[in-house]
Amino acid sequence: MKEKLGPMNALYPTPTTLVGALVGGKPNFITIAHIGIMTHTHISLGMGKIHYTNAGIKENKTFSVCLPSEDLVVETDYCGIMTGKKTDKAALFDVFYGELKTAPMIQQCNVCMECRLDRTVDFDTHDIFIGEIVQTYADQSILLDNHPDISKLKPLLFDMNSKKYWSLGEEVGKCWNIGKQLKTGKA
Amino acid sequence: MKEKLGPMNALYPTPTTLVGALVGGKPNFITIAHIGIMTHTHISLGMGKIHYTNAGIKENKTFSVCLPSEDLVVETDYCGIMTGKKTDKAALFDVFYGELKTAPMIQQCNVCMECRLDRTVDFDTHDIFIGEIVQTYADQSILLDNHPDISKLKPLLFDMNSKKYWSLGEEVGKCWNIGKQLKTGKA
Repeated sequence: MKEKLGPMNALYPTPTTLVGALVGGKPNFITIAHIGIMTHTHISLGMGKIHYTNAGIKENKTFSVCLPSEDLVVETDYCGIMTGKKTDKAALFDVFYGELKTAPMIQQCNVCMECRLDRTVDFDTHDIFIGEIVQTYADQSILLDNHPDISKLKPLLFDMNSKKYWSLGEEVGKCWNIGKQLKTGKA
Repeated sequence: MKEKLGPMNALYPTPTTLVGALVGGKPNFITIAHIGIMTHTHISLGMGKIHYTNAGIKENKTFSVCLPSEDLVVETDYCGIMTGKKTDKAALFDVFYGELKTAPMIQQCNVCMECRLDRTVDFDTHDIFIGEIVQTYADQSILLDNHPDISKLKPLLFDMNSKKYWSLGEEVGKCWNIGKQLKTGKA
Protein backbone atom coordinates (compact mmCIF):
# COMPACT_ATOMS: atom_id res chain seq x y z
CA MET A 1 0.00 0.00 0.00
CA LYS A 2 1.10 3.52 -0.69
CA GLU A 3 1.68 6.30 1.82
CA LYS A 4 -0.35 9.51 1.57
CA LEU A 5 1.97 12.52 1.61
CA GLY A 6 -0.62 15.26 1.27
CA PRO A 7 -0.63 17.43 -1.87
CA MET A 8 3.11 17.21 -2.50
CA ASN A 9 4.64 18.10 -5.85
CA ALA A 10 6.94 15.36 -7.08
CA LEU A 11 7.13 16.42 -10.74
CA TYR A 12 10.92 16.68 -10.69
CA PRO A 13 13.58 17.07 -11.88
CA THR A 14 13.15 20.04 -14.18
CA PRO A 15 15.88 21.90 -16.04
CA THR A 16 17.17 24.91 -14.14
CA THR A 17 17.08 28.06 -16.26
CA LEU A 18 18.35 31.60 -16.07
CA VAL A 19 15.52 33.86 -17.19
CA GLY A 20 16.55 37.20 -18.62
CA ALA A 21 14.51 40.39 -18.75
CA LEU A 22 15.04 44.11 -18.83
CA VAL A 23 13.88 45.65 -15.57
CA GLY A 24 13.88 49.41 -15.50
CA GLY A 25 15.93 49.27 -18.69
CA LYS A 26 18.68 47.11 -17.17
CA PRO A 27 19.34 43.42 -17.84
CA ASN A 28 18.52 41.09 -14.98
CA PHE A 29 18.61 37.31 -14.58
CA ILE A 30 16.65 35.10 -12.20
CA THR A 31 16.97 31.37 -11.61
CA ILE A 32 13.74 29.53 -12.45
CA ALA A 33 13.19 25.78 -12.50
CA HIS A 34 9.41 25.83 -12.24
CA ILE A 35 9.15 25.69 -16.00
CA GLY A 36 6.69 24.06 -18.35
CA ILE A 37 6.27 22.92 -21.92
CA MET A 38 2.87 23.85 -23.37
CA THR A 39 3.26 23.16 -27.08
CA HIS A 40 6.34 22.50 -29.20
CA THR A 41 7.03 26.24 -29.32
CA HIS A 42 5.40 27.58 -26.15
CA ILE A 43 7.03 27.32 -22.73
CA SER A 44 6.03 28.60 -19.30
CA LEU A 45 7.66 30.06 -16.22
CA GLY A 46 6.04 29.79 -12.78
CA MET A 47 7.26 32.93 -11.03
CA GLY A 48 6.23 34.05 -7.55
CA LYS A 49 4.74 37.54 -7.66
CA ILE A 50 7.25 38.85 -5.14
CA HIS A 51 10.06 38.63 -7.69
CA TYR A 52 11.71 41.73 -9.10
CA THR A 53 11.85 40.34 -12.64
CA ASN A 54 8.09 39.98 -13.16
CA ALA A 55 7.57 43.69 -13.77
CA GLY A 56 10.17 43.68 -16.54
CA ILE A 57 8.49 40.80 -18.35
CA LYS A 58 5.13 42.55 -18.10
CA GLU A 59 6.55 45.83 -19.34
CA ASN A 60 8.51 44.57 -22.35
CA LYS A 61 6.47 41.44 -23.10
CA THR A 62 9.71 39.63 -23.85
CA PHE A 63 12.11 37.41 -21.92
CA SER A 64 14.83 34.85 -22.46
CA VAL A 65 15.25 31.34 -21.10
CA CYS A 66 18.94 30.46 -20.91
CA LEU A 67 20.22 26.98 -20.04
CA PRO A 68 23.22 26.90 -17.73
CA SER A 69 25.41 23.80 -17.85
CA GLU A 70 26.85 22.11 -14.76
CA ASP A 71 29.93 24.33 -14.84
CA LEU A 72 27.71 27.35 -14.08
CA VAL A 73 26.16 25.87 -10.93
CA VAL A 74 27.63 28.50 -8.60
CA GLU A 75 26.55 31.47 -10.71
CA THR A 76 23.13 29.90 -11.34
CA ASP A 77 22.47 29.31 -7.67
CA TYR A 78 23.65 32.82 -6.85
CA CYS A 79 21.05 34.24 -9.27
CA GLY A 80 18.40 32.35 -7.30
CA ILE A 81 19.58 33.68 -3.94
CA MET A 82 20.06 37.37 -4.73
CA THR A 83 17.39 39.85 -5.85
CA GLY A 84 17.95 42.12 -8.80
CA LYS A 85 16.56 44.93 -6.69
CA LYS A 86 19.85 45.09 -4.81
CA THR A 87 22.32 43.15 -6.96
CA ASP A 88 23.59 43.57 -10.52
CA LYS A 89 23.45 39.90 -11.47
CA ALA A 90 24.01 40.65 -15.17
CA ALA A 91 27.56 41.70 -14.25
CA LEU A 92 28.39 38.00 -13.78
CA PHE A 93 27.91 37.30 -17.47
CA ASP A 94 28.53 38.53 -21.01
CA VAL A 95 25.09 39.67 -22.14
CA PHE A 96 23.82 39.64 -25.71
CA TYR A 97 20.53 40.52 -27.41
CA GLY A 98 18.71 38.96 -30.34
CA GLU A 99 15.82 39.75 -32.63
CA LEU A 100 13.48 41.08 -29.98
CA LYS A 101 16.10 43.55 -28.69
CA THR A 102 14.69 43.50 -25.13
CA ALA A 103 15.40 39.92 -24.02
CA PRO A 104 18.90 39.79 -22.53
CA MET A 105 20.72 36.48 -22.97
CA ILE A 106 23.88 34.96 -21.51
CA GLN A 107 26.88 34.17 -23.69
CA GLN A 108 28.14 31.63 -21.11
CA CYS A 109 24.93 29.56 -21.47
CA ASN A 110 25.26 27.10 -24.36
CA VAL A 111 21.60 27.42 -25.30
CA CYS A 112 19.35 30.48 -25.01
CA MET A 113 15.73 30.77 -26.11
CA GLU A 114 14.36 34.20 -26.93
CA CYS A 115 10.65 34.49 -26.16
CA ARG A 116 7.73 36.80 -26.83
CA LEU A 117 5.15 36.86 -24.04
CA ASP A 118 2.12 35.03 -25.41
CA ARG A 119 -0.11 35.29 -22.32
CA THR A 120 0.00 35.29 -18.54
CA VAL A 121 -1.94 32.84 -16.39
CA ASP A 122 -2.75 34.38 -13.04
CA PHE A 123 -2.61 32.61 -9.67
CA ASP A 124 -2.91 34.29 -6.27
CA THR A 125 0.78 33.89 -5.56
CA HIS A 126 2.31 33.37 -9.00
CA ASP A 127 2.43 34.84 -12.48
CA ILE A 128 2.71 32.08 -15.07
CA PHE A 129 4.40 33.67 -18.07
CA ILE A 130 3.84 31.73 -21.28
CA GLY A 131 6.32 32.58 -24.00
CA GLU A 132 6.41 31.77 -27.66
CA ILE A 133 9.94 30.83 -28.67
CA VAL A 134 11.02 33.25 -31.39
CA GLN A 135 14.63 32.20 -31.83
CA THR A 136 17.01 29.70 -30.24
CA TYR A 137 20.73 30.40 -30.00
CA ALA A 138 23.25 27.62 -29.35
CA ASP A 139 26.97 27.07 -29.31
CA GLN A 140 28.21 24.93 -32.18
CA SER A 141 30.15 22.81 -29.68
CA ILE A 142 27.00 21.29 -28.15
CA LEU A 143 25.10 20.65 -31.39
CA LEU A 144 24.42 17.30 -33.02
CA ASP A 145 22.64 17.36 -36.39
CA ASN A 146 21.70 21.01 -35.75
CA HIS A 147 19.89 20.14 -32.47
CA PRO A 148 21.18 20.65 -28.93
CA ASP A 149 22.87 17.43 -27.75
CA ILE A 150 21.65 17.09 -24.18
CA SER A 151 24.61 14.91 -23.19
CA LYS A 152 26.98 17.71 -24.18
CA LEU A 153 24.76 20.45 -22.78
CA LYS A 154 24.84 18.90 -19.28
CA PRO A 155 21.77 20.70 -17.92
CA LEU A 156 21.45 21.44 -14.22
CA LEU A 157 18.45 19.47 -13.03
CA PHE A 158 16.48 20.83 -10.08
CA ASP A 159 14.67 18.79 -7.44
CA MET A 160 12.68 20.62 -4.79
CA ASN A 161 12.38 17.64 -2.45
CA SER A 162 16.14 17.14 -2.01
CA LYS A 163 16.84 20.85 -2.59
CA LYS A 164 19.70 19.81 -4.86
CA TYR A 165 20.89 20.20 -8.42
CA TRP A 166 21.46 16.91 -10.23
CA SER A 167 23.27 15.96 -13.42
CA LEU A 168 21.88 14.04 -16.38
CA GLY A 169 22.71 10.33 -16.42
CA GLU A 170 22.84 7.74 -19.16
CA GLU A 171 20.50 6.90 -22.03
CA VAL A 172 17.73 4.48 -21.09
CA GLY A 173 16.00 3.86 -24.41
CA LYS A 174 14.50 5.27 -27.59
CA CYS A 175 11.14 7.01 -27.45
CA TRP A 176 8.29 5.75 -29.64
CA ASN A 177 10.38 2.65 -30.12
CA ILE A 178 11.33 0.63 -27.04
CA GLY A 179 7.65 0.07 -26.22
CA LYS A 180 6.90 -1.60 -29.56
CA GLN A 181 7.90 -4.96 -28.09
CA LEU A 182 4.60 -5.01 -26.20
CA LYS A 183 2.56 -4.85 -29.38
CA THR A 184 0.68 -8.06 -29.88
CA GLY A 185 -0.21 -7.58 -33.49
CA LYS A 186 -3.84 -7.09 -32.57
CA ALA A 187 -3.51 -3.31 -32.46
CA MET B 1 29.24 33.37 -31.75
CA LYS B 2 26.11 31.31 -31.39
CA GLU B 3 24.19 29.50 -34.13
CA LYS B 4 20.56 30.39 -34.78
CA LEU B 5 18.44 27.23 -34.79
CA GLY B 6 15.05 28.84 -35.41
CA PRO B 7 12.38 28.61 -32.69
CA MET B 8 13.55 25.26 -31.28
CA ASN B 9 12.46 24.05 -27.87
CA ALA B 10 15.46 22.98 -25.78
CA LEU B 11 13.76 23.01 -22.37
CA TYR B 12 14.61 19.38 -21.67
CA PRO B 13 14.79 16.93 -20.02
CA THR B 14 11.42 16.71 -18.33
CA PRO B 15 10.08 13.85 -16.25
CA THR B 16 8.04 11.37 -18.28
CA THR B 17 4.64 10.76 -16.72
CA LEU B 18 1.74 8.40 -17.16
CA VAL B 19 -1.42 10.48 -17.00
CA GLY B 20 -4.54 8.64 -15.90
CA ALA B 21 -8.13 9.54 -16.66
CA LEU B 22 -11.47 7.85 -17.04
CA VAL B 23 -12.58 7.95 -20.66
CA GLY B 24 -16.09 6.72 -21.29
CA GLY B 25 -16.00 5.33 -17.76
CA LYS B 26 -12.88 3.22 -18.34
CA PRO B 27 -9.38 3.91 -16.99
CA ASN B 28 -6.85 5.00 -19.58
CA PHE B 29 -3.21 6.08 -19.40
CA ILE B 30 -1.23 8.28 -21.77
CA THR B 31 2.47 9.10 -21.72
CA ILE B 32 3.07 12.83 -21.29
CA ALA B 33 6.43 14.57 -20.80
CA HIS B 34 5.33 18.05 -21.85
CA ILE B 35 4.60 18.89 -18.25
CA GLY B 36 4.93 22.08 -16.24
CA ILE B 37 5.12 23.38 -12.69
CA MET B 38 2.97 26.45 -12.14
CA THR B 39 2.96 26.88 -8.35
CA HIS B 40 4.03 24.52 -5.58
CA THR B 41 0.70 22.68 -5.88
CA HIS B 42 -0.36 23.30 -9.48
CA ILE B 43 1.05 21.35 -12.41
CA SER B 44 0.29 21.36 -16.12
CA LEU B 45 0.03 18.91 -18.98
CA GLY B 46 0.50 19.98 -22.59
CA MET B 47 -1.69 17.57 -24.53
CA GLY B 48 -2.33 17.64 -28.25
CA LYS B 49 -6.04 17.94 -28.97
CA ILE B 50 -6.01 14.81 -31.08
CA HIS B 51 -5.52 12.62 -28.01
CA TYR B 52 -8.23 10.28 -26.78
CA THR B 53 -7.62 11.12 -23.10
CA ASN B 54 -8.48 14.83 -23.33
CA ALA B 55 -12.23 14.19 -23.42
CA GLY B 56 -12.03 12.19 -20.19
CA ILE B 57 -10.21 14.97 -18.35
CA LYS B 58 -12.76 17.50 -19.56
CA GLU B 59 -15.66 15.28 -18.56
CA ASN B 60 -14.54 14.31 -15.05
CA LYS B 61 -12.37 17.35 -14.27
CA THR B 62 -9.88 15.01 -12.62
CA PHE B 63 -6.71 13.21 -13.67
CA SER B 64 -3.64 11.58 -12.19
CA VAL B 65 0.04 12.14 -12.89
CA CYS B 66 1.97 8.94 -12.17
CA LEU B 67 5.77 8.75 -12.25
CA PRO B 68 7.20 5.61 -13.84
CA SER B 69 10.71 4.60 -12.83
CA GLU B 70 13.34 3.35 -15.25
CA ASP B 71 12.15 -0.24 -14.88
CA LEU B 72 8.84 0.74 -16.52
CA VAL B 73 10.42 2.21 -19.66
CA VAL B 74 8.87 -0.38 -22.00
CA GLU B 75 5.34 -0.01 -20.61
CA THR B 76 5.69 3.78 -20.48
CA ASP B 77 6.80 4.04 -24.08
CA TYR B 78 4.02 1.68 -25.17
CA CYS B 79 1.45 4.01 -23.57
CA GLY B 80 2.86 6.81 -25.74
CA ILE B 81 2.65 4.77 -28.94
CA MET B 82 -0.83 3.23 -28.63
CA THR B 83 -4.14 5.07 -28.48
CA GLY B 84 -6.71 4.27 -25.82
CA LYS B 85 -9.31 4.35 -28.57
CA LYS B 86 -8.12 0.94 -29.76
CA THR B 87 -6.02 -0.43 -26.89
CA ASP B 88 -6.78 -1.21 -23.24
CA LYS B 89 -3.59 0.27 -21.79
CA ALA B 90 -4.89 0.04 -18.22
CA ALA B 91 -4.64 -3.75 -18.52
CA LEU B 92 -0.86 -3.38 -18.26
CA PHE B 93 -1.10 -2.16 -14.67
CA ASP B 94 -2.79 -2.62 -11.32
CA VAL B 95 -5.09 0.39 -11.11
CA PHE B 96 -6.18 2.11 -7.91
CA TYR B 97 -8.30 5.16 -7.07
CA GLY B 98 -7.98 7.80 -4.37
CA GLU B 99 -10.03 10.58 -2.88
CA LEU B 100 -11.41 11.95 -6.12
CA LYS B 101 -12.68 8.50 -7.21
CA THR B 102 -12.31 9.32 -10.92
CA ALA B 103 -8.54 9.65 -11.33
CA PRO B 104 -7.07 6.20 -12.02
CA MET B 105 -3.54 5.63 -10.72
CA ILE B 106 -0.92 2.95 -11.26
CA GLN B 107 0.25 0.73 -8.41
CA GLN B 108 3.52 0.00 -10.26
CA CYS B 109 4.45 3.72 -10.27
CA ASN B 110 6.25 4.64 -7.04
CA VAL B 111 4.69 8.11 -6.93
CA CYS B 112 1.23 9.16 -8.15
CA MET B 113 -0.33 12.62 -7.87
CA GLU B 114 -4.10 12.90 -7.86
CA CYS B 115 -5.29 16.17 -9.41
CA ARG B 116 -8.44 18.22 -9.71
CA LEU B 117 -8.67 20.20 -12.96
CA ASP B 118 -8.12 23.84 -12.00
CA ARG B 119 -8.39 25.38 -15.47
CA THR B 120 -7.57 24.71 -19.11
CA VAL B 121 -5.40 26.99 -21.22
CA ASP B 122 -6.38 26.76 -24.85
CA PHE B 123 -4.00 26.70 -27.82
CA ASP B 124 -4.95 25.93 -31.42
CA THR B 125 -3.36 22.51 -31.28
CA HIS B 126 -3.14 21.74 -27.57
CA ASP B 127 -5.18 21.67 -24.39
CA ILE B 128 -3.07 22.69 -21.41
CA PHE B 129 -4.67 21.05 -18.41
CA ILE B 130 -3.69 22.69 -15.13
CA GLY B 131 -4.32 20.49 -12.12
CA GLU B 132 -4.30 21.23 -8.43
CA ILE B 133 -2.59 18.38 -6.60
CA VAL B 134 -5.10 17.00 -4.10
CA GLN B 135 -3.16 14.02 -2.77
CA THR B 136 0.20 12.37 -3.45
CA TYR B 137 0.69 8.63 -3.02
CA ALA B 138 4.14 7.09 -2.70
CA ASP B 139 5.75 3.79 -1.89
CA GLN B 140 7.51 3.75 1.46
CA SER B 141 10.57 2.25 -0.24
CA ILE B 142 11.40 5.46 -2.14
CA LEU B 143 10.77 7.93 0.69
CA LEU B 144 13.36 9.89 2.64
CA ASP B 145 12.09 12.05 5.52
CA ASN B 146 8.55 11.65 4.16
CA HIS B 147 9.50 13.12 0.75
CA PRO B 148 10.14 11.22 -2.49
CA ASP B 149 13.88 10.52 -2.82
CA ILE B 150 14.58 11.22 -6.47
CA SER B 151 17.69 9.02 -6.49
CA LYS B 152 15.55 6.04 -5.47
CA LEU B 153 12.63 7.04 -7.69
CA LYS B 154 14.83 6.93 -10.82
CA PRO B 155 12.53 9.02 -13.03
CA LEU B 156 12.50 8.53 -16.78
CA LEU B 157 13.73 11.79 -18.27
CA PHE B 158 12.48 12.75 -21.73
CA ASP B 159 14.41 14.69 -24.35
CA MET B 160 12.66 15.58 -27.60
CA ASN B 161 15.85 16.47 -29.48
CA SER B 162 17.51 13.06 -29.05
CA LYS B 163 14.11 11.29 -28.90
CA LYS B 164 15.45 9.29 -25.97
CA TYR B 165 14.70 8.58 -22.34
CA TRP B 166 17.58 9.38 -19.97
CA SER B 167 18.33 8.48 -16.38
CA LEU B 168 19.10 10.83 -13.52
CA GLY B 169 22.79 11.26 -12.74
CA GLU B 170 24.70 12.39 -9.69
CA GLU B 171 24.21 15.28 -7.26
CA VAL B 172 25.86 18.52 -8.39
CA GLY B 173 25.26 20.82 -5.43
CA LYS B 174 22.84 22.23 -2.89
CA CYS B 175 20.25 24.79 -3.97
CA TRP B 176 20.14 28.19 -2.25
CA ASN B 177 23.56 27.30 -0.89
CA ILE B 178 26.37 26.62 -3.37
CA GLY B 179 26.00 30.12 -4.83
CA LYS B 180 26.65 31.86 -1.52
CA GLN B 181 30.38 31.78 -2.22
CA LEU B 182 29.86 34.60 -4.74
CA LYS B 183 28.45 36.92 -2.09
CA THR B 184 30.83 39.78 -1.50
CA GLY B 185 29.40 40.95 1.78
CA LYS B 186 28.03 44.06 0.09
CA ALA B 187 24.63 42.49 -0.50
